Amino acid sequence: MKVRILVRLKPGVLDPQGRAVHHSLDGLGFEGVEDVRIGRMIEMDVAEGTTDETLTKMCEQLLANMVIEDFAIERLDDAKEPA
Amino acid sequence: MKVRILVRLKPGVLDPQGRAVHHSLDGLGFEGVEDVRIGRMIEMDVAEGTTDETLTKMCEQLLANMVIEDFAIERLDDAKEPA
Repeated sequence: MKVRILVRLKPGVLDPQGRAVHHSLDGLGFEGVEDVRIGRMIEMDVAEGTTDETLTKMCEQLLANMVIEDFAIERLDDAKEPA
Repeated sequence: MKVRILVRLKPGVLDPQGRAVHHSLDGLGFEGVEDVRIGRMIEMDVAEGTTDETLTKMCEQLLANMVIEDFAIERLDDAKEPA
């Protein structure tokens, strides 16, 4: 089962990497970009039946820094077959 | 308009960071994880009407390293209102 974990900085936490990218996009002539935030995407192939609880524990213990980051769990197989 | 760019290593490119995370998950006692790949998520607030072509150019010129990485563009507002 494929799952995708998206880890992003909490609102209000300064994102220097995003700021640098924003600045570079401006420099390259791309107009209309108002905000850029950069996060991590972790794609995992886990055993069928792995619960959200287990995935949440993985995030809390290893994948995200809960002090400054939020995470979201997306199940990729579900998304393809919503029925 | 909010867009999300997902940048991931091309298939076959070694992912030492993903391997380290996989190993750590095993060490923490999480079972059944078969593969871990780590990529970047770039969330941008861009002007309404920004075309896929422009977003693709941003990726090719700055956001992704086309030699070893692939990217995918997701429009977050569209996803919410598929009608």
